[in-house]
Amino acid sequence: MPQPVSQRATVKRIPKRGVYDRATIDRILDEGLICHVGFSADDQTFVLPTIHVRVGDNVYLHGSPASRLLQALAEGAAACLTVTLVDGLVLARSAMHHSMNYRSVVLFGTATVVEDRAEKWNALRALTEHLIPGRWADIRVPTEQELRQTLVLAIPIHEASAKVRSGPPLDDEPDYDLPAWAGVIPLRLAASDPVSDPRLRRGIEPPAYAANYSGPR
Amino acid sequence: MPQPVSQRATVKRIPKRGVYDRATIDRILDEGLICHVGFSADDQTFVLPTIHVRVGDNVYLHGSPASRLLQALAEGAAACLTVTLVDGLVLARSAMHHSMNYRSVVLFGTATVVEDRAEKWNALRALTEHLIPGRWADIRVPTEQELRQTLVLAIPIHEASAKVRSGPPLDDEPDYDLPAWAGVIPLRLAASDPVSDPRLRRGIEPPAYAANYSGPR
Repeated sequence: MPQPVSQRATVKRIPKRGVYDRATIDRILDEGLICHVGFSADDQTFVLPTIHVRVGDNVYLHGSPASRLLQALAEGAAACLTVTLVDGLVLARSAMHHSMNYRSVVLFGTATVVEDRAEKWNALRALTEHLIPGRWADIRVPTEQELRQTLVLAIPIHEASAKVRSGPPLDDEPDYDLPAWAGVIPLRLAASDPVSDPRLRRGIEPPAYAANYSGPR
Repeated sequence: MPQPVSQRATVKRIPKRGVYDRATIDRILDEGLICHVGFSADDQTFVLPTIHVRVGDNVYLHGSPASRLLQALAEGAAACLTVTLVDGLVLARSAMHHSMNYRSVVLFGTATVVEDRAEKWNALRALTEHLIPGRWADIRVPTEQELRQTLVLAIPIHEASAKVRSGPPLDDEPDYDLPAWAGVIPLRLAASDPVSDPRLRRGIEPPAYAANYSGPR
């Protein structure tokens, strides 16, 4: 069984929920619509949401060079990138044993600025295709100027851990006799019917990937 | 219009998306199922997911005294607590203008350990009722020992900001002539039918708050 590569990437609380294999880590990163990135600057910790995509052994972030988050990471701030998927609410017979079913990944690392044009292009395409599989073929791709105006960062997936809880509640033995209902309420991200832009040209219907959206690839 | 109370609580990137009124901030905190809390320890930033509840002017967290997150906050680490609600994917005509509709809150502060028994009890009840409105009346409430074994922390809602994007894509003017579909795919958290604990006593049906779960209160 894969082991953690460092102290900081070791699940401390409820160690049996810690998972260190890349397949599990990649699946969670790939299923996450957003991540939360933490960094410190001027003695203050910031946690900001952003979108990400995994390509091979890297997680890519992108945005404006004016972004405080991207600036700090580009300058070498030690980052912590966390993706959390909530799979369900776990209703136990006692208040104490209520829980959530979830899958999370915590990734530690330092970002590098992607300068290579091909890698940058691929990262931007992957970001779009990660969120909306099939979209890239239908849209105007970035101009050279837009490409220059976009900062793309890569964080290597080296020091990462996953934490997973699944299954029914675990109650104290005497509590199983209580008359309370117990079990799991499964939760998922769901899409509603797409809403066309009021300025959409007449006669353009939502494509299948929007009409039947089922989450990141 | 309410203004930010500090530099660090000021939305820097796309300032027009910054919102500083407590009603908006409270609504986002109340609708969030989980938050991500960041803190620094030993020159490393950590971002960990946990559940929270707002009661009045405080956000409460809870957990085991063995939790690395709670220990660090209890020792006075400067915390950043972020709640992000993803409302939709914004599909523009150019790659560059794709976006998300979202509502997020970033709260800066230092936690205090809740020692008062009544406040602690109320916070634990509020945590359960926030996630599953109606649940508290059906379950075994904490014993004195369980109460002692649970650490409850309060972070005051003093330095907070919200950031909100809503509405259709905003494309570059010439791109409105392109034949691509554009609009929003609305997203929400959805519950499926509750799954009873395999050890549930016979004849106990899921209560309405589980069968028709519609998110935090």
